[in-house]
Amino acid sequence: MAFAPEQITARLADFAVNANASRWPAPVHREALRSFFNVVGCTIGGARHEMVRIADQTLGAFAGPEQATLFGRGRRADILHAALINGLASSIYSFDDTHETAVVHPAGPIAATVLALAEYRPVSGADLLTAFALGVEMTCRLCLGTTVPPADGSFAWSGTGISMSFGAAVAAGRMLRLDVPKMRAAMGLALSEAAGFRAMHGTATVSFMPAHGGQMGLRAALLAERGFTAGLSGLEGKSGYLSVFCTTPDRDALAGGLGERFEVLRNTYKAYPCGIVIQPIIDACLKLREAHHPDPDRIASVAIQASPGAMALCNNRNPQDEMQAHVSLHHWTAVALIRGTARIKDMETETAVKSPDLMAFQSKVEATLNPAFAADQTEVTITMTDGSRHACRIEHGIGSKLNPMTNADLERKFFGLAEPVVGAERSKELIEKTWNVTALADAGELARAAA
Amino acid sequence: MAFAPEQITARLADFAVNANASRWPAPVHREALRSFFNVVGCTIGGARHEMVRIADQTLGAFAGPEQATLFGRGRRADILHAALINGLASSIYSFDDTHETAVVHPAGPIAATVLALAEYRPVSGADLLTAFALGVEMTCRLCLGTTVPPADGSFAWSGTGISMSFGAAVAAGRMLRLDVPKMRAAMGLALSEAAGFRAMHGTATVSFMPAHGGQMGLRAALLAERGFTAGLSGLEGKSGYLSVFCTTPDRDALAGGLGERFEVLRNTYKAYPCGIVIQPIIDACLKLREAHHPDPDRIASVAIQASPGAMALCNNRNPQDEMQAHVSLHHWTAVALIRGTARIKDMETETAVKSPDLMAFQSKVEATLNPAFAADQTEVTITMTDGSRHACRIEHGIGSKLNPMTNADLERKFFGLAEPVVGAERSKELIEKTWNVTALADAGELARAAA
Repeated sequence: MAFAPEQITARLADFAVNANASRWPAPVHREALRSFFNVVGCTIGGARHEMVRIADQTLGAFAGPEQATLFGRGRRADILHAALINGLASSIYSFDDTHETAVVHPAGPIAATVLALAEYRPVSGADLLTAFALGVEMTCRLCLGTTVPPADGSFAWSGTGISMSFGAAVAAGRMLRLDVPKMRAAMGLALSEAAGFRAMHGTATVSFMPAHGGQMGLRAALLAERGFTAGLSGLEGKSGYLSVFCTTPDRDALAGGLGERFEVLRNTYKAYPCGIVIQPIIDACLKLREAHHPDPDRIASVAIQASPGAMALCNNRNPQDEMQAHVSLHHWTAVALIRGTARIKDMETETAVKSPDLMAFQSKVEATLNPAFAADQTEVTITMTDGSRHACRIEHGIGSKLNPMTNADLERKFFGLAEPVVGAERSKELIEKTWNVTALADAGELARAAA
Repeated sequence: MAFAPEQITARLADFAVNANASRWPAPVHREALRSFFNVVGCTIGGARHEMVRIADQTLGAFAGPEQATLFGRGRRADILHAALINGLASSIYSFDDTHETAVVHPAGPIAATVLALAEYRPVSGADLLTAFALGVEMTCRLCLGTTVPPADGSFAWSGTGISMSFGAAVAAGRMLRLDVPKMRAAMGLALSEAAGFRAMHGTATVSFMPAHGGQMGLRAALLAERGFTAGLSGLEGKSGYLSVFCTTPDRDALAGGLGERFEVLRNTYKAYPCGIVIQPIIDACLKLREAHHPDPDRIASVAIQASPGAMALCNNRNPQDEMQAHVSLHHWTAVALIRGTARIKDMETETAVKSPDLMAFQSKVEATLNPAFAADQTEVTITMTDGSRHACRIEHGIGSKLNPMTNADLERKFFGLAEPVVGAERSKELIEKTWNVTALADAGELARAAA
């Protein structure tokens, strides 16, 4: 195909409209399904979170007809509201997914978008998964091509925030069968609403930003379908996305090897409900506890060699509420070493977060930077009051690309998330239905089963 | 008051919550009312625009209960939809308002926000106008403090796009009587959705961006009221708004002289439905036509000395549709010299824009940069086929701060906009009601009158 470098939006739109998923390699289908499966579980699991409840009840007063399912909330609303609320639920416990290098959490709002739209404009499960895969691909490529955060965390934008509307517009536009010009308009409108920065970390807005992006992408595709006009070169156009969000875009990462290189293959799934850079630290603490059974009261200090990302984003002692706990390596070190767990219930109430034993223990935890460590690496050393020491080094934390969650791990995670919300029987049904989504003639059936 | 420089969000929130409008100087009330009056007319005038129709009909399928009036569209919808659609209508003809130096169009989405909310949570007209004035003040200050575009137009962000959610959150938050912590949360959530860049100019998305900002600001205030959490230092916080949208914020412009210096006093109202930087050129052409009655066929060339802003944004020959015509100085030069007008009907159809006489004439029009010219300055020289020349220099175009629209001008503008949509009688009533909005016990009455 002959696209000039300045035609990057057109090139991506052409791929989004014309990609033939039946020619994609089997691992792409497999990993797209695993990404989808993982985040459907996260969405159900987050459904009854207090912040999801506030958002749904507040904005429900302005929502439209009962077109789409609000996962795990026992009610329906218009598809734009559903996309927002389900997208919010998908990441509210910071338990979703992360691209290996882009540090974006691509799946949640894209899944929320395609599932909401599928109940309004029915499609097969196979078409739904293709649209989802394309949305994830575009979100990841946009991040990789423009906004890969430096390892020191000094990047101020929220990568997931600013890339999500684009991916959601592509996913929705694919389901709406937009032609290339309308796909480009949808992209332009969605890009013009790209937003989000990291000052919101530690609050519910960190999950609202990508959910909002997904909703705006869906809205952009719906408007473009009806002829609402937008700039057709939203990425490379003068004063467009590439000129405002990065200095030197990586054009190959953005639009090279389309249909040959698939970013979904580099998606990973969290093993614990917290920031991705904390996960190897929890691994190390759980292993130390299992190997040495240290009495927490006799631990004098915990020294953590942390990756640059962990230091920049999660070096936060004594969080005061759940959202702050998501990004506190001290909190999770205390939980893992004292309780031997790393579960939602270890943070979901203020009581759990402010538990006196956890708060007291955190003063013993000290993280120092190891600039050579990747995000999935750490070394944790505990020193006992008698002077003895135990160390554990993790090269690749569980859930990272080189130590991935297996399908069985993902099923356990799904069940653990869904069971408290919809019960054991329904959870098993949903696990079955989600694994087999591509067999559904009407993908909306899955959404309705998650009510 | 003792605020540390790093407490800029808190300082602005304190002002937004506690400002006592009864102590504001009379000119502030007067200019706030003129800003409001001007943009109510623009909103009614834009109500039946094709792009407003598309947006309303498309998104109306997902809209909620009939809580608020869609101006001039004969129907009602939920307040978030109304804020979006009315905000879109307010600027769809590029006929709204412009701050003297910030090059932001502050009033439309703020007015749409307060008017929609007033029908849901009734307030007096005086309180509505105070909330409106505060929203305009915050939008302008945010632009002035962070994003004043350089005169050469190289600034890629849409100033109106990225500042509007903040002002709308303040206006709505004031009407909801948020306390300072909740106002700060509303600000944080709204800022995290700030978006928009200039690649969308020449399409309907240029109007959608600020309308979207207004809607998001309203949503943020409603969510903050119910306890949804967001970062409380959205402006100055690490990785916050100030770190992503500017290099060196002007803290005095942002938060100096609150309650003493009022940016609404520097708001101006457009005399013609097009980009602000084209307005003096139209003035010059109309004066040349009136003075010399030049036969357009005997005009050999039109030489325009244009400001840097006019060159950067509007040096666009032969636009192909209305949205492109908004930002084409060639189009309006042809219209003014051939027709002696500069009306909506001179651009609102593709037929009008592509009129053969206009298209042919534009090849005679040449704009060159005069780097010393302000945005409201120009010099236009016409050379006749017989070699004779006529020149007209404009120091301050009509509608600029030093040559402002009078109240009578604003009334004529309002009537010209409203009459085709709601008829002459209703337009007169609305003019009366809008000038007297502060006398209304229930401000929602004004919105309902504009149905």
